[in-house]
Amino acid sequence: MNEPATAIEAAVAASPLHQLKDELDIVIPTIRNLDFLEMWRPFLQPYHLIIVQDGDPSKTIKVPNGFDYELYNRNDINRILGPKASCISFKDSACRCFGYMVSKKKYIFTIDDDCFVAKDPSGKAINALEQHIKNLLSPSTPFFFNTLYDPFADGADFVRGYPFSLREGVPTAVSHGLWLNIPDYDAPTQLVKPLERNTRFVDAVLTIPKGTLFPMCGMNLAFDRQLIGPAMYFGLMGEGQPIGRYDDMWAGWCIKVICDHLGLGVKTGLPYIYHSKASNPFVNLRKEYKGIYWQEDIIPFFQQVVLPKDSTTVQKCYIELAKQVKEKLGKIDPYFDKLADAMVTWIQAWDGLNPTSASFSNGKTG
Amino acid sequence: MNEPATAIEAAVAASPLHQLKDELDIVIPTIRNLDFLEMWRPFLQPYHLIIVQDGDPSKTIKVPNGFDYELYNRNDINRILGPKASCISFKDSACRCFGYMVSKKKYIFTIDDDCFVAKDPSGKAINALEQHIKNLLSPSTPFFFNTLYDPFADGADFVRGYPFSLREGVPTAVSHGLWLNIPDYDAPTQLVKPLERNTRFVDAVLTIPKGTLFPMCGMNLAFDRQLIGPAMYFGLMGEGQPIGRYDDMWAGWCIKVICDHLGLGVKTGLPYIYHSKASNPFVNLRKEYKGIYWQEDIIPFFQQVVLPKDSTTVQKCYIELAKQVKEKLGKIDPYFDKLADAMVTWIQAWDGLNPTSASFSNGKTG
Repeated sequence: MNEPATAIEAAVAASPLHQLKDELDIVIPTIRNLDFLEMWRPFLQPYHLIIVQDGDPSKTIKVPNGFDYELYNRNDINRILGPKASCISFKDSACRCFGYMVSKKKYIFTIDDDCFVAKDPSGKAINALEQHIKNLLSPSTPFFFNTLYDPFADGADFVRGYPFSLREGVPTAVSHGLWLNIPDYDAPTQLVKPLERNTRFVDAVLTIPKGTLFPMCGMNLAFDRQLIGPAMYFGLMGEGQPIGRYDDMWAGWCIKVICDHLGLGVKTGLPYIYHSKASNPFVNLRKEYKGIYWQEDIIPFFQQVVLPKDSTTVQKCYIELAKQVKEKLGKIDPYFDKLADAMVTWIQAWDGLNPTSASFSNGKTG
Repeated sequence: MNEPATAIEAAVAASPLHQLKDELDIVIPTIRNLDFLEMWRPFLQPYHLIIVQDGDPSKTIKVPNGFDYELYNRNDINRILGPKASCISFKDSACRCFGYMVSKKKYIFTIDDDCFVAKDPSGKAINALEQHIKNLLSPSTPFFFNTLYDPFADGADFVRGYPFSLREGVPTAVSHGLWLNIPDYDAPTQLVKPLERNTRFVDAVLTIPKGTLFPMCGMNLAFDRQLIGPAMYFGLMGEGQPIGRYDDMWAGWCIKVICDHLGLGVKTGLPYIYHSKASNPFVNLRKEYKGIYWQEDIIPFFQQVVLPKDSTTVQKCYIELAKQVKEKLGKIDPYFDKLADAMVTWIQAWDGLNPTSASFSNGKTG
């Protein structure tokens, strides 16, 4: 990046946010060559990539020249985690969370390999990562709704009637970005509306209020792994499991109740990426159908979860949550017993790879 | 409207929403001639206006030709309500709620007389009332957040992970619209940012989640008076009161906790109006300063309010709320004792003018 080749590269290099290049890793789960990175080059090339190769580990994944990356396949995961590798899903994009665990950076941006650079209504390419960083570096406001959306956006503020004591906000742990073109629909909706495309550019970022759950999509997501990383577990999905496509949903329910408990913020809205291709709705239906049924009980469970006061770190919250999952959701299906055990294994594996994170979290949230 | 004079009028007359002209009243509080209606003529002329004249009742308010209206000044309010007129504020736009009470229609749209027709980013005039009606006629989704915003908007739907059991939604009671140009800031923010203008057009409507309060502005507001009317009381403000500019905030806190209790929805976002002139920040500071202080206690009160199960109508909820206001907020200032009494008087006056509404509400919500 010494000689920026394009106007976009120059703008990216000049951005004060560019400094985060030493504090942020980009995590990409994939089963194919990463040609999609060409379009992202001006925005993402300064950053380090962690590629989690799913499926056949003997296959070689090609990464475009000039990107700085490390790549882990299933053999690597098994070698690094040993028996604890059982908590990392196989043949499902849930495997991406291994990348969160091996990162040593403060921030993570994760993106799917069928996501491209979107354009804003003026036709300008959207620097998704820059917007995620803005979202993460400015506070969240989960305790009261601001009708002009993000009060920290340019040209915006808190409106009349917003309590002054709440204007400082809380640290932002998660930034959930959206998708133009192919919307993130479930299989039934995909089947019913095969031609629906999302063309609505909503120029807003907002904090999801405390006590409200949301469907977190893993396609275009950033978070502060020091604040919430150990809760960003994408569960047991894919091969050998009765369910798929609920990896990010599971993580979203868990992180939201833990953020609410610890006084951290979750934002959604900008930035948009361009989601290029819809997955097969028939395959999705097979993966999803139990989730569609189970979520009718899982969501009330998460809406009612209370974490004890002495759960003062993300790890403690997560272990407590695993306990309650086993108690309350185990009745639905033995899968949840297995999942609860995997949640505990995940924390053990996380702490093994991040030996100082437990005490760090203590300091931040206690 | 037999011979539409302009393309806009033709479009308005052709709209299926036009049919609501017999079911909706427009309430305007004012102290001046209503020249601002000229700009609204193509959109609002089919509807009946209820004008609440504030201040000197001997003054004559001019209404542009061709509008169908009834006008009430202070003498009318005193004559109609007798001693109960004490609950209607004087010399404050809070007086507008008298218009809600005398209406016999199902829906109310209320707008300030310094609000003009806004344009969308394509330059097209926004039919604010049509959008409010769309908002009110489609369900709300207060129990779970939809990341693509209003799932009932054209080209949108519920995203993956949204529980199917919640997709029917709940009836919408309130539609809160926004403002381009002059944002609705409090006096301190007006003083600090005198030049800030809102130019961000956010193309979204969203349901404010259950359990979350918001600052409701009365400038551009519509609601279903059969569902929530008796709670849309704008309090005691202006002459003889220690506070102003909290009329709509008060109503917003009350309607939100009652909607949450009764399973009704509150939406915010589109439509925008163009707010033409900022009120004087020095005058506003004098009106607001106690509210700015008091809201630090009032908002936690409303966040914690629990209405009993047998509060099955808006009226019962409101009387219960008045009781709790007296108990809990009376400690802050004797003003809240007076306000709690006025809340009870308001319900008595409402029921006097709307003798069937109590039983109607019973039927709707019981």
